[in-house]
Parts: sequence; structure tokens; C-alpha cells
Amino acid sequence: MTDSALFRSAAIDLLGPRGFTTDPELVDPWLTDWRGRYTGAAMGLASPATTAQVSQFVQLCAEHHVPIVPQGGNSGMSGGATPDASGTSVLLSLRRMNTIRDLHIDAAQLTCDAGVVLQTLHEAASAQGLRFPLTLGGKGSATIGGLISTNAGGTQVLRHGTMRAQVLGIEAVMADGQIFSGLVPLKKDNRGFDLKQLLIGSEGTLGIVTGATLRLLPAIADRRVVWAGLKSISAARDLLRHCENTAGSALEGFEVLPAHCLESVVAYLPDARAPLAENHAWHALIEVVTEDRESEHLDQIVEQMFETAMERGLAENAVVAANEAQAEAFWHLRESISPAERAIGPAMQHDISVPVARMPEFIETATPRIENRFPGTRAVGFGHLGDGNIHYHVLAPADAIRGAWENAEGKAISAYVHDLVTEFGGSISAEHGIGQMKREELGRLCDPVALDLMRVIKRAMDPQGILNPGKLVPLAPRAATP
Amino acid sequence: MTDSALFRSAAIDLLGPRGFTTDPELVDPWLTDWRGRYTGAAMGLASPATTAQVSQFVQLCAEHHVPIVPQGGNSGMSGGATPDASGTSVLLSLRRMNTIRDLHIDAAQLTCDAGVVLQTLHEAASAQGLRFPLTLGGKGSATIGGLISTNAGGTQVLRHGTMRAQVLGIEAVMADGQIFSGLVPLKKDNRGFDLKQLLIGSEGTLGIVTGATLRLLPAIADRRVVWAGLKSISAARDLLRHCENTAGSALEGFEVLPAHCLESVVAYLPDARAPLAENHAWHALIEVVTEDRESEHLDQIVEQMFETAMERGLAENAVVAANEAQAEAFWHLRESISPAERAIGPAMQHDISVPVARMPEFIETATPRIENRFPGTRAVGFGHLGDGNIHYHVLAPADAIRGAWENAEGKAISAYVHDLVTEFGGSISAEHGIGQMKREELGRLCDPVALDLMRVIKRAMDPQGILNPGKLVPLAPRAATP
Repeated sequence: MTDSALFRSAAIDLLGPRGFTTDPELVDPWLTDWRGRYTGAAMGLASPATTAQVSQFVQLCAEHHVPIVPQGGNSGMSGGATPDASGTSVLLSLRRMNTIRDLHIDAAQLTCDAGVVLQTLHEAASAQGLRFPLTLGGKGSATIGGLISTNAGGTQVLRHGTMRAQVLGIEAVMADGQIFSGLVPLKKDNRGFDLKQLLIGSEGTLGIVTGATLRLLPAIADRRVVWAGLKSISAARDLLRHCENTAGSALEGFEVLPAHCLESVVAYLPDARAPLAENHAWHALIEVVTEDRESEHLDQIVEQMFETAMERGLAENAVVAANEAQAEAFWHLRESISPAERAIGPAMQHDISVPVARMPEFIETATPRIENRFPGTRAVGFGHLGDGNIHYHVLAPADAIRGAWENAEGKAISAYVHDLVTEFGGSISAEHGIGQMKREELGRLCDPVALDLMRVIKRAMDPQGILNPGKLVPLAPRAATP
Repeated sequence: MTDSALFRSAAIDLLGPRGFTTDPELVDPWLTDWRGRYTGAAMGLASPATTAQVSQFVQLCAEHHVPIVPQGGNSGMSGGATPDASGTSVLLSLRRMNTIRDLHIDAAQLTCDAGVVLQTLHEAASAQGLRFPLTLGGKGSATIGGLISTNAGGTQVLRHGTMRAQVLGIEAVMADGQIFSGLVPLKKDNRGFDLKQLLIGSEGTLGIVTGATLRLLPAIADRRVVWAGLKSISAARDLLRHCENTAGSALEGFEVLPAHCLESVVAYLPDARAPLAENHAWHALIEVVTEDRESEHLDQIVEQMFETAMERGLAENAVVAANEAQAEAFWHLRESISPAERAIGPAMQHDISVPVARMPEFIETATPRIENRFPGTRAVGFGHLGDGNIHYHVLAPADAIRGAWENAEGKAISAYVHDLVTEFGGSISAEHGIGQMKREELGRLCDPVALDLMRVIKRAMDPQGILNPGKLVPLAPRAATP
């Protein structure tokens, strides 16, 4: 038997036929990322059922020098869970590990397997009068392990922080198969280096997250959702500051979109209509919430907020959703921007952040420059203004052919956007991570000292380079072929 | 010239006579920690004025294999800033680097040197209508760099988190003298490993923090401070949950102390008196705050909170501070526990955490066991119940001699307490760090996988072992003697 055949046979012995397969019908669906940008190959798909199995399997991989690509819901945005084309690595799916291990209502904490889907977590918390304060478009497939490994964001970061802020403890399998047992439900713990922080956002390149202890919050008792029409992105930033000052910690979300995004969504969604009658250059979607039963305070906040906002010219117009159905409809407009835009034609998408205060200047500088430099394109930024994070998309000219246009122009456009972001002291990855998509760009633009530290840590924690090779760390040492 | 003389001469060339001294009158005051527990020796005291100087000085140390002990305000609790007795290392004081580099009112962010004192930071923020939401007893000497390196806590962690939660960006000098420039004022940044998280709490063993970007919050407009008498520590925990549910994010602090602590403080402080007339087994100090100008809401919260708390028997009695002076007086009682206790006699102090829900059980189990096992002692726990973190002190028998008693009994008592904490799934260092005081205990009780990872990371990032050797990492490689 070749070493590769030996490995496969040992893997089946270890995990059983359900736990390890090479059947293309079972493996192939997971070899392409959900956006269809990357397709790889794998010598098999491992689906361990327990942390102990993950540990043993990683040990086996380490012995045979087999690279491992961990995968949760396969809903990542940067190709971080798709193997390369060599076919020498194994896909390690965490989806079978989907148990909520325990939920402490009193402590408002939950411990679960890495494969639990975000939506399931929301439902489990909600059933106990609690909530998990992070949500995003892919909630029906994204797993807790994937959210941790990419330090996911979403629409509630403004008030509650990214995934990092929700994680109290982590269990992970390291490159040699050892289990790091950090499921510590402690609010304070200064016993040396905070290793979980290093694992959060490391995209499976330093360890494989198998479980986590997460914080929960009291359920929201009531909310108000407001749609505001604005004259400019500067007005949006000023309105944001005003809302922060007026609503304080009740401000749960503040999303912005330009007129073009709203038009695309209204054209794309059947039965959708713009919340405001007039045209506005920019729009803001604002949510204030309360955990109190009594929500009069909320009405007061909203009233006070928008009375002064209109007086000061921060908003041209605003409407409060009359009921929960309308609130949902407002949010549905926001959440439909991506599919609406995809329906129009190809685009290069950038998940970027700059200091909140500089966002208007960034958009006002970048947009004309890009449209000038790449004639026929249209630059559109929308999203989480409150976090200084927008999704900055460059839409192809009307006659562009999907696939061909991205191949011809994509790299130059992204480099141009990333250079601008760097000029503004921003980040080329605000919430989507590096994966394989931005690895080269990270190598090009990252501070060399930070880059060097990442390489040093990667080499120290994964000397064989078998954990998700080719992802995140630019020029990480390649694993030897088995 | 010996290598050591060469080094000193090069250091003076580099930093000037103000920047490097071997004068015992200038060096000696910094060779003993403020609690007087540890005294070391040093071949000199370096006081660089800029990050560039720190970088060059660390390079010089690396060339000459000279170990470096970074020091801020020398107000640490675990001997982490005190060199060993060999006299081969240099003290590196960050105190001369005390500039607030900039303060963005609009963004509520501040960038400063590592040597800025916490009190100075509070004043700078306050002058702009903002606040920095972390405070502790040593605020008049503790520096930002020290607070970051120990991931300090304090009395506001319940609502605002530890130092880690306040840090947006870090600048640090690495073991080879390279400058890690991570002063990124971004709310979201997923460009690879979050290196600053590894530096926070690493006690100068991985890098020397030279600057930071910190978040600020709106100033508090008003507060209510309540003193409550309770029948037990379980009642305290239940009252905490009740307050969290009633006050929500307005709950800023929740401290507890047993009758013994209050008695000690009242005996120690001239003119102090107990806030409540009756005796109670336990006391809670509770603060609710608002950033709003209108504070009627606050009175409502407090009223509602304690009406139901008394009805449900969660508190035996409670009094709201009538004015700001009385509020200060209540807090002064809490802050005087440590000196009051020191006046009584020797004690072994433990900064521990357990899951909040298990704290009553821990205290009720540990206290009789300890007092039984070490006859004549008295075990007293007080502090941050809301964080699951108490300062658990074992007071010496009445006839014990200071110094002798700690030497004879201290190690056994601490090991006993730490074993119990470990049994309860807790931490032997909640907020004070490891330093040299708990390094051996960390080696004894830490999960071996975590320990191994810490060693691997330490070796990778500081291969010569020159950064704060003998601290935090058990059995870290020793630096070669110069």
C-alpha cells in the first residue's frame, strides 16, 4: 500500500465509514466555496463525532504529513475553508459535532460543539429568554467554530462586538493532536498568555476549534427600527454620532446604504418598496432596543433622537417602522443588497474598515478615483458605518461578462482599493478574514514586523505546516506531500 | 573593558546620562515591589524617552544578551516588575514616556505612551467630557503599559471589561528590537492573528508595550450608590442577578464584603462608620450610573430594584447614598479594606476567580476547611462578586509574627487555596497576573497543553529569553548571563 492508502485505511479504522469517506458524491459538494469562487480537491472528507476523534485524527494526519483543511458551514467569504487543487489534503468537517453541551440560564452562558449552526444557537438561547448577540446573513449554515475561527462580525457589532467579544472559552485541537481545554466560564482569568485570543480569527491555521463557551444576553423585549434619508455620507456619520449620544447603549445597529443599493434591491425584490417617498443620496437603517418590558422609554429615545436630528439637518426625512412586520421589511431591504447586486452583474467586493471618523472622506475620495481609473465601473459602499466597516463593491460595466471581467480586471481593482484603504490607515479585511483570497494582498500590504511575528508563531505552533496550509499567513511553510 | 562595562557604556551613549544610570540612589528605589515582598538587583536603570530609543536599547540588550525587566509604576501585585537577585538584568522604566499623543473627542479614542499614569489619563478624558472606564487602587502610579501588560481589572469590569476590552491598538518593541506598530484605531480588523491580544497580559515576556490606542466613553452624568446588608453570600449572588435584571446596563459595580472586613475598616479609619445601623453577615456596595443628563430614570431603577429585593428577602436592609460625598464615603470603605487588614496583622492574599454562580458554594466550602486546616487563621473573601473574582485572604492567628508566619505557613496556605480554586474550575489569578509570585503555582496547576503552548510561543518570540525572564512562563528558558 502507498502511504496515502495506508492513511486512508487508518482514517476509516479510526472514524468509521461515516466518519471518513473518499466518495466523490459526498466529498465534492464541499470542495467549492458557497460563492463559487474557489474549487479545490481533497483525498477525503473526515467527519469526526467527538473532540477525542478530532484529536486522534489530527495525530494521524501529523504522522502521515497530511494537510488538514477544517470546515464548518462552508459559508466563509474568503475561501478559507476550501482546499488547494493538489488533492493532497483532507477536509475536516466539524458539522457532525453539533451538540449544545450545556446552557446555564442563571449565568447566561452556553457551551457547545464547534459544529452548532448559528441559527440553532439563536433558537436555543431564545427558548430560555436569552439571546446570542451576533447575527449575519449566513446564520442558517455558519457554525460556531467557523465564526470563531474567522472572528465574524455582522450587524450587531456596534453594541456587542465581534465574535471575539462573545467567547468566554475555547476547546481546540492543536497541530500535534493535543487538546487545548480552555472552556473556562470565567469572567476574569489572568493565568498567562490568553491563548484563546490567538486562536480566535486564526482561520484554522494554529488549531482546530472543537467547542466554545459563549456569553448570552437577556432577550430583547422591544425595538424600534428607523429608516432615514440623508443628503450625504458625512451626514450619516454625523447622524451616527448623534444617535450614539442620544440613545447610548440602546443603539443596537446603524447601517448605511447609498441610493444605488436601495434602487437595486427594490428592483430585485418582488413587492418591495422604498420606505421613504422622496429620493435621498444615502439611507440609514437604525435600530434601538430595550431589554426592559416597558418600552415607553424607547419611544422617547427615538422621538428625541429624530426631532433634534431633523432640526440640525442630519437627516432629510425619517420613518419609524409601525410594527414588527415593517421592521422586518426594513431589515430585509438591507439584507438583500448582496443578492440584488449579484443579479445586476459581476462585481469586485471588498470588506474594508477605516477609522469611523474618516469613512466619509474615504468614500468621497475613493469612489470618483476608482470610477475614473476603471471606466464604466461603479463603486458602491454600504454596511456597518458604526463599526467603520463597509462592504465596498466595484460593479462591472454594463457589458461586462461574468468571469471574464473579474479575471481581467479584478486583481488590479482590488489592489487599487486596498492601496487606498491602507492610505487611510484602514484594514483590507474588516470582518471576512484573509483565507486564500487576500493572502497575497496581506503579504503585500501588512506591516513587515506583524507579518514576521505571524510567521514565527505559525511555525512554532504548527511546525509541519499541516493546519490549513495556504491560508491567512503569507508564505507560510508548505506541508510536505504525504 | 568587560562585556558588561561595554554594554553600560553603549547604553549611556545611546540614552544619555538621564536615560541610563547605575547610581544606586536612583536605581534602588525601583528594585523592591511596592508591597515589599520582592527585592532584586539590576546592573542599571534605563529610562528611554521615545519608542525609537526603546527599540535601540532592546537591540543593544539582545546583542549583549542582557535580560530586560520592564517596569511601569511598580505597583504590580505579583512581583512581575522586580528583577531577580543576580544583578545581571537591566530595569527598563517606561515612566519617562508619558505623553498623551492624541485624543479624538469625536471618535472617543486616545493614543498615549505606555508611561502615562492612569490618573492622568482619567483627567485628560474628563477634561473633554469623556471617561476611561477602568480604575483601581493604584491609579496614582499604575501606568497604561503596566495595566496592559497585566490585563488589569478593577471595580468597573462588571460593565466595561478588563483592560483588554479598552485596548484598540498597541505599539510594542519585540525581543529583537523591532517595533510592532499596531496603534490601529479600527473597530474591526481581521488581518490575521490578533497579535495585540497576545501581548495584553503577557507581563512583558513577549514584548515591551510602548504605546496604546484606548477607547473612551461618555462621562457619567449621575450615579446612585447603594449599601445593602445581606444575610449570606448566596443572598449576595441572588441580589446580583436581580440587580443585573433590573438595572441592565446601568449596573456599573457590585462589590461584596463580609462583616469582618467592614469591622476592620471602621476600626482602622478615623471618623468612619458603618452605613447601616444593624449588623449583617455580608454587605454589598452597588453602583448604578447614567450618561444621560436626566437622572430620574436612575431613581426609578434604584427604587424598583430594592423594593423587590427587600420583598424577596435578597437584602435585609439598604441605604442609598444621599449625596456625592456619602457615595464617596461608601466607596472609601470598600477601598480601605486592604490597608485596614494590613494593620491587623499578616495575611496570605489570593486573587482568585470561580464561575459567578459557584462563588457562594466556594466561600462556604473553603472558609471552614481552611480555618480548620490552619488553626487560628481566618479566611475572608471580598471584592468583585459580579466578575466571579474575590480577593480571598487568609489572616494570620492573633499571635503571629509578620514575616516569620508567612515564611512558615504561606506556601502551604496558598497551595491549599489554589487547589480548592482549581477544584471549583476557577483561576489562581483573576486580575493580578502571575509575575514571579505565582509562576511555580501556575506550573503546578496549569493544564499541561496550555503550559506547553505558552513555552512554545515564548521560545518563538523571545528565543534568547531576555524579556522579563523568571516571570509568568514556568520554566521558561533562562537568558544566558552576559
